[in-house]
Amino acid sequence: MLEEFAEEHIEPLAIGAWILGTGGGGDPYISTLNLRRLYAEGARVDLMDPMALDDDDMVAVVSKMGAPLVGQERLGDPVHLARAVEVMEDYIGKRFRAIMSVEIGGSNALSSFLAAAVLDRPVVNADAMGRAYPEAQMTSFAIGNLPMFPLSLVDVRDNEVIVTRAASWKWMERISRKVCTEVGSTAATCKAPRTGREVKEWGIHDTVTKAVELGKAVLDARRRHADPVDAILDHEGGKQLFRGKVIDVARETTGGFLRGRTIIEGIDGDRGSRLELAFQNEWAVAFRDGEPVAMTPDLLCLLDTISGSAIGTESVRYGQRVTVVALPAPALLTTPAGIAAVGPRAFGYDIDFRSVFP
Amino acid sequence: MLEEFAEEHIEPLAIGAWILGTGGGGDPYISTLNLRRLYAEGARVDLMDPMALDDDDMVAVVSKMGAPLVGQERLGDPVHLARAVEVMEDYIGKRFRAIMSVEIGGSNALSSFLAAAVLDRPVVNADAMGRAYPEAQMTSFAIGNLPMFPLSLVDVRDNEVIVTRAASWKWMERISRKVCTEVGSTAATCKAPRTGREVKEWGIHDTVTKAVELGKAVLDARRRHADPVDAILDHEGGKQLFRGKVIDVARETTGGFLRGRTIIEGIDGDRGSRLELAFQNEWAVAFRDGEPVAMTPDLLCLLDTISGSAIGTESVRYGQRVTVVALPAPALLTTPAGIAAVGPRAFGYDIDFRSVFP
Repeated sequence: MLEEFAEEHIEPLAIGAWILGTGGGGDPYISTLNLRRLYAEGARVDLMDPMALDDDDMVAVVSKMGAPLVGQERLGDPVHLARAVEVMEDYIGKRFRAIMSVEIGGSNALSSFLAAAVLDRPVVNADAMGRAYPEAQMTSFAIGNLPMFPLSLVDVRDNEVIVTRAASWKWMERISRKVCTEVGSTAATCKAPRTGREVKEWGIHDTVTKAVELGKAVLDARRRHADPVDAILDHEGGKQLFRGKVIDVARETTGGFLRGRTIIEGIDGDRGSRLELAFQNEWAVAFRDGEPVAMTPDLLCLLDTISGSAIGTESVRYGQRVTVVALPAPALLTTPAGIAAVGPRAFGYDIDFRSVFP
Repeated sequence: MLEEFAEEHIEPLAIGAWILGTGGGGDPYISTLNLRRLYAEGARVDLMDPMALDDDDMVAVVSKMGAPLVGQERLGDPVHLARAVEVMEDYIGKRFRAIMSVEIGGSNALSSFLAAAVLDRPVVNADAMGRAYPEAQMTSFAIGNLPMFPLSLVDVRDNEVIVTRAASWKWMERISRKVCTEVGSTAATCKAPRTGREVKEWGIHDTVTKAVELGKAVLDARRRHADPVDAILDHEGGKQLFRGKVIDVARETTGGFLRGRTIIEGIDGDRGSRLELAFQNEWAVAFRDGEPVAMTPDLLCLLDTISGSAIGTESVRYGQRVTVVALPAPALLTTPAGIAAVGPRAFGYDIDFRSVFP
């Protein structure tokens, strides 16, 4: 039920998580340095099968929060993530059996490991998104209508806040987002504690392993001088949407989010067309020549055409040669409740969800 | 050590507190309706001498927070103030012996009574300002360098937040202000719990009685058809600064505060001059023909010339006949530490404090 998370899994986890981040959640690079440092100091983290949790175990759900452009990872992250967990333990008066990340996409995939390495707990092989999303209510736990409070939030300056009750998921998001913005748009949070039963029922399972395997597929393709983009598509059952060159990027950090759009001019089979990717932290909707062709909850990924590395909404820039792919979403997200929580309308687009995976 | 706070003290408390509010803190009128209703339902509140507290008693410090223009009192206030106290008791795991208001100025003078009536506790005859001030760090407890956390904040929608740690009083103010603004610029808060020893050492004592006596002096003058403004000056040892007519008001609600200025054109002995009153929730500095003539921490009060009623920064309007008076500040506020915390520079005016009471 516990297996050691070997040091050689850190790199593939980061590569896979960054692809599953769909442009958001931040590049996990600094987090890998942090985790390697903790491993060098002797820390080891065990990975725990969610189905091995007892019903009344308590699980901490951790997350760094903030706009990707601002919320660049810091070397002090492990301590603050661990502190957010400790603040929550003090508040609820119970010890967490294990720690999980709220999202497997982007650097938060490693947040659970950083907190776990400091606190010597296992990481649950699960998350609550199966990818990355910008808002608190965009989780499997919210879709399952589980309580959204309490939430602890810790910043780098020694400020600590607990939202002990919220009128709704949206209010939890509004309040915690405002605190996060005020303390500099980056904070470590411990979300509403979950029971083992809740994680078993509503968690998105085995996503740590999924990210590691995806990362391994990319590394393996590079080693074999094969096409990493093809390897990603094969491994995930994805579809290539567009290939071209980035010709325009517009973005602004507003209300604690990074919002904007990227325009790609087609090459090869896509010559003569343009793809626009609209984003709020993550890529949300792809418009081909003005028509929506792919959208959340399908995973839209912007990949470097040569290396297959993910490109983030905060780092995409003019001139990059890119391939846009769609990967299938976790099944829960494509249910009616899932689409209501994370479909295009949740991002302000008046479009009916249509999957590219019929 | 306990004496019942009689129902006939409610009106003079409101009148006195509104004068001591120096334009801010909100008109206590709705709070008096709330307290009368609770009394009609059988509640009675006892007033407790702060010196009767045991050193290790715990005292809740309550406050409604918000911009006066928005934070109009609501009929539901007692429940939310009591809830803020209960959230804090749950968090610290201790029962409060008594409740006090953070500020005796404006409607918060009654906040302690509203919470106390719901929770059946005594009110401490003390506050932490001896008047009203807009920011969390502008208290005698901050001047005494006491811890500023935890703080609980409750809104009308069922959101509850605890700031469990803050890097400084300013950070506590910034974070709690942002949450307050997000939930609609009005919230009930329970500030950092104080021990009996801290209240005895750093509270501003007997200010409930002071406000009641001031209100009684005004009511008595009105009954005798004497001049209520003179009665206020006599009772408090105050000075008349200016008499005239309001000719201009500029205000905006920004960052959770009401800021602006009022211009008064002189009559009688002040004919030919103008007085400008600058405010941030409360009147901060008076400029006579451009020269600063009175300033915080001296209490600047704008009074209706006929009735002696206080006029608030949120309700002052063109054409009112007004008298501006200064009342002496609590001694602690005119010490160097007091002036640093609440003097003109704390409000952004590059002026050395000069009292009108040499």
